[in-house]
Formats: sequence, C-alpha cells, structure tokens
Amino acid sequence: MQVWDLSIAELARHYRRGTLSPVELVGTLLDRVQALDPSVRAWELLDSDGALVAAAEAERELGKDANTAKPLLGVPFGVKDVVLTSGLRTASGSPLFSDFVPTYDATVVARLKAAGAVVLGKTITTQFAFVDPVPTRNPWDLERSPGYSSSGSVAAVSARMVPAAIGTQTGGSTVRPAAYCGVVGLKPTFGRIGRRGVMPLSWSLDDVGLIARNVEDVALLLGAGAGANADDLTASRRAIGDYARELRRPPRLGLLLDSLEAVDAVVQRHCAEVAIRLQAAGAVVRERTSSVRLSTLFAIQQVTLASEAAAVHGSSLHERPDAYLPLLRAFVEAGQVIPASVYLHAQRLRRRARADVRELFAHVDCVMLPAQPGEAPAFGTDVDALLQAPWTLLGLPAMTLPSGLSPNGLPLGTQLVAPRFREDRLLAVARWIERVLGRLPAPPIAQASQADAIEPASSRVS
Amino acid sequence: MQVWDLSIAELARHYRRGTLSPVELVGTLLDRVQALDPSVRAWELLDSDGALVAAAEAERELGKDANTAKPLLGVPFGVKDVVLTSGLRTASGSPLFSDFVPTYDATVVARLKAAGAVVLGKTITTQFAFVDPVPTRNPWDLERSPGYSSSGSVAAVSARMVPAAIGTQTGGSTVRPAAYCGVVGLKPTFGRIGRRGVMPLSWSLDDVGLIARNVEDVALLLGAGAGANADDLTASRRAIGDYARELRRPPRLGLLLDSLEAVDAVVQRHCAEVAIRLQAAGAVVRERTSSVRLSTLFAIQQVTLASEAAAVHGSSLHERPDAYLPLLRAFVEAGQVIPASVYLHAQRLRRRARADVRELFAHVDCVMLPAQPGEAPAFGTDVDALLQAPWTLLGLPAMTLPSGLSPNGLPLGTQLVAPRFREDRLLAVARWIERVLGRLPAPPIAQASQADAIEPASSRVS
Repeated sequence: MQVWDLSIAELARHYRRGTLSPVELVGTLLDRVQALDPSVRAWELLDSDGALVAAAEAERELGKDANTAKPLLGVPFGVKDVVLTSGLRTASGSPLFSDFVPTYDATVVARLKAAGAVVLGKTITTQFAFVDPVPTRNPWDLERSPGYSSSGSVAAVSARMVPAAIGTQTGGSTVRPAAYCGVVGLKPTFGRIGRRGVMPLSWSLDDVGLIARNVEDVALLLGAGAGANADDLTASRRAIGDYARELRRPPRLGLLLDSLEAVDAVVQRHCAEVAIRLQAAGAVVRERTSSVRLSTLFAIQQVTLASEAAAVHGSSLHERPDAYLPLLRAFVEAGQVIPASVYLHAQRLRRRARADVRELFAHVDCVMLPAQPGEAPAFGTDVDALLQAPWTLLGLPAMTLPSGLSPNGLPLGTQLVAPRFREDRLLAVARWIERVLGRLPAPPIAQASQADAIEPASSRVS
Repeated sequence: MQVWDLSIAELARHYRRGTLSPVELVGTLLDRVQALDPSVRAWELLDSDGALVAAAEAERELGKDANTAKPLLGVPFGVKDVVLTSGLRTASGSPLFSDFVPTYDATVVARLKAAGAVVLGKTITTQFAFVDPVPTRNPWDLERSPGYSSSGSVAAVSARMVPAAIGTQTGGSTVRPAAYCGVVGLKPTFGRIGRRGVMPLSWSLDDVGLIARNVEDVALLLGAGAGANADDLTASRRAIGDYARELRRPPRLGLLLDSLEAVDAVVQRHCAEVAIRLQAAGAVVRERTSSVRLSTLFAIQQVTLASEAAAVHGSSLHERPDAYLPLLRAFVEAGQVIPASVYLHAQRLRRRARADVRELFAHVDCVMLPAQPGEAPAFGTDVDALLQAPWTLLGLPAMTLPSGLSPNGLPLGTQLVAPRFREDRLLAVARWIERVLGRLPAPPIAQASQADAIEPASSRVS
C-alpha cells in the first residue's frame, strides 16, 4: 500500500491510528507533484506553505482527540482554478485575472476547509471552463487529453498527486474528463452545492463537481460540501439521505438506448459487457428510450450556454478581445446574436423536458449510459458534451465511475443519473456497481513514481 | 340607493335580508348594459342566460341558509377577454381566437365561481392585452379613453354595469385604466393569484388584476381569488393577513418623488392636496427618492416584455401577420431582434432592483405615487406604463383608489405599493385613505340611466 494511493476514508483511519500524519502526507504529495507534474501539468499553482501549515494544524487537532476529528481532517484537495480561494490567485485561465487574489473562499471550498480539508493548490482549467486547449495531459497516456474543462483536477486525482479535487460542470466538464482519466466524478443536483465563488460561464448551468478515486470518497466530499451557508443562498438546505442505507437489493438500471448511437464501437462493447456483468451479479437492466432525445437536450443546453456566456463575457470581450482564446471568443460572439425569444423558447423546452424525463426513472433506480463517446481523445482536443450536458441542463445529479479499461488500456466510465436530490440513491447504486466491477489500478505513470510505503509513525501521534 | 350601485358587501347584506335577489340584480344589470353599452362599449360578450341560471342557483342556495352563504354568492362579475372562461368564447381581441371556446376556467375565474360569484360576460380587451386601440369609451367622458388594456373591465365597473371585474396587468393594464375610470384596481403580488388560463403576453410579467368600486370589495375578490389550486401551481399557498386588523394607527406613507416628474401639473397638484389631507387626518407622509429610478425600471420592464412577447407571438405573427394589430406587431418584431444577452442583463438588473427597492419601505407602510400621468387621454389612445410597470416588474402588490376629480371633473387615482405578499398592509392603508377622502360618485352617464330603487321583495325570499 502506498501513502499516495490511500482513499479519504483510509487516510482518516491512518490518522486516527497514528500510522500517518497530515504533514507527512502533504510532504509526500508535494514530492509527487514535483516528480510527476512536469509530465502531467495538472497544477496551475501549488500552495505548499499554506498546505503544510493547514496540515500541521490538522495534526494538532488530531493530537487533542483523534476520534472526534472532522470528517475531512487533514485531507488534501485540489481546486479548479475557476473556483475562488481566499488568498490564492484564481486566474480562470485568463490574462484578465492573472493578478486576481480573492478575499474569500467559494462556498464549497469554505465548507470543505471547515470539515478539515487542506487546499493543496489550484488545478489547471480551460479558460473560463470553456473548451480551449490546456497543457494538461492524460496520466494514462501523455499523448492524450485528460478531457475538458476540469482537466487539472481529474489528472491530479488520477495521477495520485492528491486524493480529491473540486471541478465544475456547465456541460460535461467533470463527468467526461473523470471518465477519461479513470476517476470518480459527481455533478450533484443543481442547488445541492453553493455556487458562490464559482466564476460564471453560464448562470443557470454552472455547477460544482466533486472528484475522487472511489464512491465512498465522493460521498464524503458531497456530505461536507453540500448545503446552504448564511452568505450563499444558492444551495438547498435539504438533507442528503444516507446512501449506505439506501439500497438493500441489487439495483434496477435503465440503460438509455439513444446514448449508444453517440458512442464508438469500443464504448458500445464496453457498455454491453458492463450490463452483462451487472445482470450476472443480480442487477436488473432495462432498456430505456426517452421521448426527449439526448441531441435535443444538448441543443437546448447549447443555446442556453451561448446566450448566458454572451451575457457574462460580452462586454469584457468587447473591451479585451485579445484576452480571449479563439473557441470561447467565437462562442461568445455567436451567443451575442441569439435572440432573446430563442433563448426563452429554449427555457420553455427545458422546463418541459424536466417533466418529461421523469418517465425515464419509472421502475428503475438510476439511468445508466456511457460517460464518454470513446477513449480519451488526442492531446489538445476534446469532444462535445452530448452525453453529459443533458443532465446538467435538467439539474439532475449525475456521476461517472471507472468501469474498465479499453483494449488500448485506457479508462472507460459508466455514467449514472438519478432524480433531483436523490444523490443517496445515485451513490448507493454506484457503490454497488463499484463492488461488482472492482476498482481501476493507478495509471502506470503514477505507479512508476517513488514508492512511499507507510512507515510506523509512533513518535508522532500519541 | 340604487341596486346597480351596491357594493359586494351591501349585496350580500340585501341577499341575506331578502331585500334583493341575485336574479333580480342580474336582470337589472343586463338592462343597464343594454341601455349604456351602446355608448360605453365595455362588453365583448354577455352571458345573459348563463348568468341568470347561475343567479337562480345562488338564489336557491340563499334560500337554504342565507347566513352560511359563500362570500361572493350571487355577485356578478365581468371577465377580461384574455382570461379563459369555460364554455364562453375567449378571443383576446384577436381573429386567431375568434372561435375559441375554452373547456376550462382560468384559476381566478374558477375560484370566484367557487365562492358563489356569477360571470356576467366577457369585457373588451386590447388585442392580447397590448396597446392597440379598443372601441371602449371612458364612462366619465365618452370622448376619452378608459385606458388600456383592461378597458372593458374598468369601464363596466365604473358605469355600474357590474360590481366587479377581472383584469390583467403586464405593465399598468389594471391600475392605470382603473384610475382613469374612478374605480379601485389591485394588482396583487406576483404569485398571489394563479395565472393558469390567462392568455400570455409575457410570462414573467403577466398577472391578474382585480377591479371593484371600493377597497372592501377588492379585498373580498382577493380573498376568494388568491391561492393555489391542485391544477395550478403558479400561486402561493401563503395566507393573506386580515387587513381589517393590520393597521391600528394612521399610516406612514412614502411619497415617491421621481414619480412627480412624470406627471402633469393637474396630477402634481392633486397629489400634493391628497398628501395634505392625509397628513391633516394623522398620516405621516415622508418624501422618498429611490436609488432605482422609475424610468430605469420601466426600461427593464420593456426589454423583458418585448423579449417574452416575441417568444410568445413570434411564430404566430410569422404565419398570420394580417391577424395582428399594428402596435403589437411592431412590438413583437422589435422584440425578435433583442439579443438573449440583453434580456439576461435585464433580468440581472431586475433581481438587483428587487433587493434595492426594499429601502423604499423602511419606516413607511406603503409607497405612494400617482396612478396616472394626467387625466384620461383622448378616445383611442393611452400613454405608457411608467408609473405602474415598475411594480409589475418587481412583482410587488400595487393598487389605485379614486382620490378625487380634476377641475374638468375627471377621476384621479392615488397608487399605493406594498412589500411582497403584504396585501394586508396595502388594503389597510387604502381603506384608511378611502375613509379620509371619501368615495367618488358614479359617473354622470351611470346616474342618468334608469333609477332602479330597491323594492320590498318579501314574496321572493323567506
């Protein structure tokens, strides 16, 4: 067992027993970043000093009473650089914000910190979380893309440089790259996690994403990050049910048929194999066709995104066209000529679709579909969000979990979608599937790095 | 005392005592419509048979137990012809709907009927409640306009052809014409009354208006018409406080100064006189300036209205341009070229203004401003909604009550605005002012008509 491969839950156990300390872990991870990141390029900015100070503070708290520790005490995490961090530059991949040091934390960051977690640094994002290329590479194959736009967050978690990270999702920016990099990515119900402090691209679509290496860890991040704050009313106060108690039988899954038309033969075959393995383990898999097609929902999402991005970035682009990368610039310019009446029609169709998709959940616990259209694409590229954006548009919770490797040895993910505010059910189904399919190993590059075995640390913790 | 001049509350008393019956009243009103409406042109469609049947049914209910009667039992009302009435044509002033007979009642109509009220007929509206001219005339001066767009509803109530009517308001379509015609008009909080069955012009602005001849009657209409129905979730379930218990002292009023720049000398003088009379009676009148100007709010409302009207009517206009009157047609065409980003900016400003106007209500019960910019305009015209549209935009409850006559003998109204869902306070202040200022007489044309004194009716009711 390697320190850098431990899950959040395992870290907590080691911390309690005194077989590992937060400072030690942060030191190990910083070393790994130094070793790996020249190849992977996941990090925009490391906060080495801040992380070590926070880890030492966590260590003191553990020393007082290890058993009453906060749920994420001493757990390092990365923060996508469109998410504000107090005292830590947040540039959003834009020269317009190259000197911007926020004076407050985004709600989700503040809540994870309050649960004891430690910011390790900021991870690389595409400019304003759109789709212009980033220097980040896929840890499974450095000639491939990690996917956009939470590129650094998924690559850092995948390469075992950090056990958890915050991403965002406006189309498919958490679920798709998480699938390409073989990690777990969750986009909760819109309104589950506060959006204050997330730099906007599209008000009605932008949401926070949670990234870790297994379902339990993502559930821990969700439990800590969700909920309303006094200064952020964008999140619901609705409690999250306990996923561990949610499902007492094998799940019933609705396999979304039109998603299979949008993926290549490798993913089609993988999806069929996954369905067979799950059925063999007791799951019920029902084929589902929706009266609302994914391509229709994607079109509605694109009109919404372009209109809102034009409202957010229009005047700034007018003043500083040079500061914008070409794809975002062209998209905002296109958005500026979308008539209000078209936007409003899109919103009406969106409301109607919200009601129509309920039929998908009749008699099944979750909808199941591929998380990606194929293997991770070539470095410097990504594909569209057809498979993920529909759920973002409708505000439904969606997640990917790694479900195998392609013949080329690249990660493939299975996407699950649940009704609004049913993250408990989503996580319960995901955990069941994770147990059946097992977990992915670390990518070869992560294994090839230093092999830090856990040493006894009896001198450190009482 | 004339039967046709009785208020809703007075009607109920007469019905209980047996000194008047619903069928008798409906008969009298139908006769008055026949006598007056060739001049006034308030009615689009009378439902004489339906009203007589419903009145007879109300009479039977009264016969059973007059003291447990429904609050509006046997009270006739008119319905603006953009509001759906089951079995009664609803044309919205458009050839597109000249044969449209709805199969259900709008929520507000259904609720008033459930409270015992009787539909007398449909009242003339401008086409789709926009601002193209109507044949309706102002009962106070037939050479003048009743104001748009609830023209028939306010004219019918003013001319004593019916004691109450339903209007709508998207800008100032209830409050402004009610002021021109010397009646009370209330536009409740957005979300107080269900909007199902109101033909749309602008989804986020359209609301129901209530029209009667005194504050108590409007309060009775509100009490019956407000609230959620199983098949209409557009209305809040929040209870309405009892206005009769709301204010135990003279009111504190905030006189909105920038409104006085938008009215002519007659209205300015009237407003000053009203303020002096109210102060003499004990009210506190404080001058208020808003950080958000009426003209800014009006501009936001116009962008919102044009964008949404283009979304509602764009494709229909494209198919049948001949079916649209010129002003609405030009407005929809202009709305079609408003970019989505401009609409979205307007909505952001709208949300901010919603917070900013709260300062107007600090230390005062209601905001007070003129309900109209001058006397009723010439027949076939109306002015803009600058004085009313800001409150519609922000979803605040607003009402006008007649506060005097101009030197030319035309009605002038005082407008009151309260915080969201504070209709109780709004009505309490209005009733206090009504008691101080007294009520207007019926317009001369209404008094000149048949003089139906109440006859003993001992043979009719037990």
